[in-house]
Amino acid sequence: MALTQNAALRLYCVERNYGYTGLRPIRRVRFGGGWKRACMKMKANMETNVEMVNGKKVNGIHVDGISTFLDKRKGGDLLNEEPNHEYMLGRFVEDRFVYRQSFVIRSYEIGPDKTATMETLMNLLQETALNHVASSGLAGNGFGATREMSIRKLIWVVTRIHVQVEKYSSWGDVVEIDTWVDAAGKNGMRRDWIIRDYKTQDIITRATSTWVIMNRETRRLCKIPDEVKKEVQPFYLNKAAIAAENTDSEKIEKLTDETAERIRTGLAPRWSDMDANQHVNNVKYIGWLLESVPINVLEDYNMTRMTLEYRRECRQSNVLESLTSMKTITSEEEDDAENSIGTEDLECTHLLRMEADQAEIVRARSVWQFKQHNQII
Amino acid sequence: MALTQNAALRLYCVERNYGYTGLRPIRRVRFGGGWKRACMKMKANMETNVEMVNGKKVNGIHVDGISTFLDKRKGGDLLNEEPNHEYMLGRFVEDRFVYRQSFVIRSYEIGPDKTATMETLMNLLQETALNHVASSGLAGNGFGATREMSIRKLIWVVTRIHVQVEKYSSWGDVVEIDTWVDAAGKNGMRRDWIIRDYKTQDIITRATSTWVIMNRETRRLCKIPDEVKKEVQPFYLNKAAIAAENTDSEKIEKLTDETAERIRTGLAPRWSDMDANQHVNNVKYIGWLLESVPINVLEDYNMTRMTLEYRRECRQSNVLESLTSMKTITSEEEDDAENSIGTEDLECTHLLRMEADQAEIVRARSVWQFKQHNQII
Repeated sequence: MALTQNAALRLYCVERNYGYTGLRPIRRVRFGGGWKRACMKMKANMETNVEMVNGKKVNGIHVDGISTFLDKRKGGDLLNEEPNHEYMLGRFVEDRFVYRQSFVIRSYEIGPDKTATMETLMNLLQETALNHVASSGLAGNGFGATREMSIRKLIWVVTRIHVQVEKYSSWGDVVEIDTWVDAAGKNGMRRDWIIRDYKTQDIITRATSTWVIMNRETRRLCKIPDEVKKEVQPFYLNKAAIAAENTDSEKIEKLTDETAERIRTGLAPRWSDMDANQHVNNVKYIGWLLESVPINVLEDYNMTRMTLEYRRECRQSNVLESLTSMKTITSEEEDDAENSIGTEDLECTHLLRMEADQAEIVRARSVWQFKQHNQII
Repeated sequence: MALTQNAALRLYCVERNYGYTGLRPIRRVRFGGGWKRACMKMKANMETNVEMVNGKKVNGIHVDGISTFLDKRKGGDLLNEEPNHEYMLGRFVEDRFVYRQSFVIRSYEIGPDKTATMETLMNLLQETALNHVASSGLAGNGFGATREMSIRKLIWVVTRIHVQVEKYSSWGDVVEIDTWVDAAGKNGMRRDWIIRDYKTQDIITRATSTWVIMNRETRRLCKIPDEVKKEVQPFYLNKAAIAAENTDSEKIEKLTDETAERIRTGLAPRWSDMDANQHVNNVKYIGWLLESVPINVLEDYNMTRMTLEYRRECRQSNVLESLTSMKTITSEEEDDAENSIGTEDLECTHLLRMEADQAEIVRARSVWQFKQHNQII
């Protein structure tokens, strides 16, 4: 079903100097054991959530004057109306198990090939996840933490994320993102996303991720407290964005100086890469991972899949190294040798590590499709 | 009134290898001579623009089903309605001389101090400017170029931008950005912006910029052709976001190895810094300029003003150096020595240059206010 099937969290000690808060990636966590699904519905709780969506405080934005807006819109002069910022947020769909938000791809969110970058997609996934929590009425004082988590100084940390891109959007395109959560073993949470092209309603991206809970002071992972389970379980939805047979749950090989084909050293985080916790925003890692990918791959191929396995945080003072190795792969549809010459997909293995002690920050795997390929077919 | 008062464009030869297109910064251009304002109104043309705003193609987004939306909204069940993406675009106000667009500050657009960064503000200014052109019905095939410009292979390039920030917004805040254009001498265009906090309607940022036209093949600056003037002049508005006495039109000193207090070398653009033209996006320069600013300034001060003077483009292969010098300044309100001890504002001069031949890319000036300062007062 997803990455964390047969999962029971084994907790690892995390070095105290990580300093994670909010949506921080963490040191590797392994899952094994039984899969448990919890789908109890707490009707009363859900009602409250709906009130929160319509209420005064949604996603940190005080949406004053909604009733005024509703009155005005009946008279309906679209051009002269105030913009309604509620439309710029999301809403609950599918019996309120799914949170849906639309985004216009902005001019500065596209890359050299004029389409949204993987970083942009990851940013939008993060934004939707945070707004889901905020709109659910559960939000505590941290990024994505619930109230019961905030009381206990607990935070969510992402251990793995897997993204499959069918089509990258262009500037001005509208994308519609659905997100929902489910159990991932006893002590994890899975969060899935589907991105649709708003106009065609085609699914253009699917993603799944695994999250665990950490104490932000002791920096140790911990079980999900019962009080937190009671908060989040009513939102659990037994549905997978990526079917089990299509997902990437394989171990990512650890690259070394010997196995890496390309190593880019001396990568220094900039002040502008830091997030609100003065750690490197985990989306920024993608940019560094790509620094050891050959330029012709970046130019001539589309990244169609990416899996990130977060192991360690880094701060601005850390100098990083990016390692990549590559191999060609032939997808099932095109094992006809004639068609596949020069058009095979590429699979890359990546590692981002500290230059000082070679400690691993993130392992990754990416799959790339030759851009002309689509035109040939 | 603005940066380019008494302006008449003197054209400089630009090296052919710049390869600018779209919203590219250019080699320094100097202005001198007479100021001319052109405010003719072409009623017929304006009508067309309004149609474009309501029409099928707005800002690259095909807004299908608006009439359906209008029908549905009369019945008004807000939560079950489709999101209206028109609200995510902008609209014309003030007799259609001003284009206005709102944005929610996203979680990944805030920096270490949890407020929107200067890069975020610049990105939003760029987005609003591009959408202004697109919504005006003038858009050609390039970023921000008009149809008559596209026919002639001409592009707009920004020579200078000055931003004054009163208050940085937080995640979830809604900002409302107004933008308009005016003449800047015979051969330049001025573009101004005002950013308001949507909730309070307080003006929190003001910005002004100067643009000239370049032939994207010969890489030479040129006069604005009459046909292009006819397109843009109906939009010209004699109004300045920043009053002449408050703007920064002073020359920015050129820093050298001798005059710079801090030099950060070996700054390498990443693939992810490249824009659709495979040049460094001009907003990214800000991140590099800040790399030579001491960390305690970045942490303890708010940047309240920034002026960027673009001189040369750079590509991914260029390695850069960032230079900064600083001095304390005392603002008029606080020449009382007792209050100003330890709380003076800082003024920085910056230079970003090529490491190879020390060619200047951008000169900049920034003013910083001590963060505790506001609390003391």
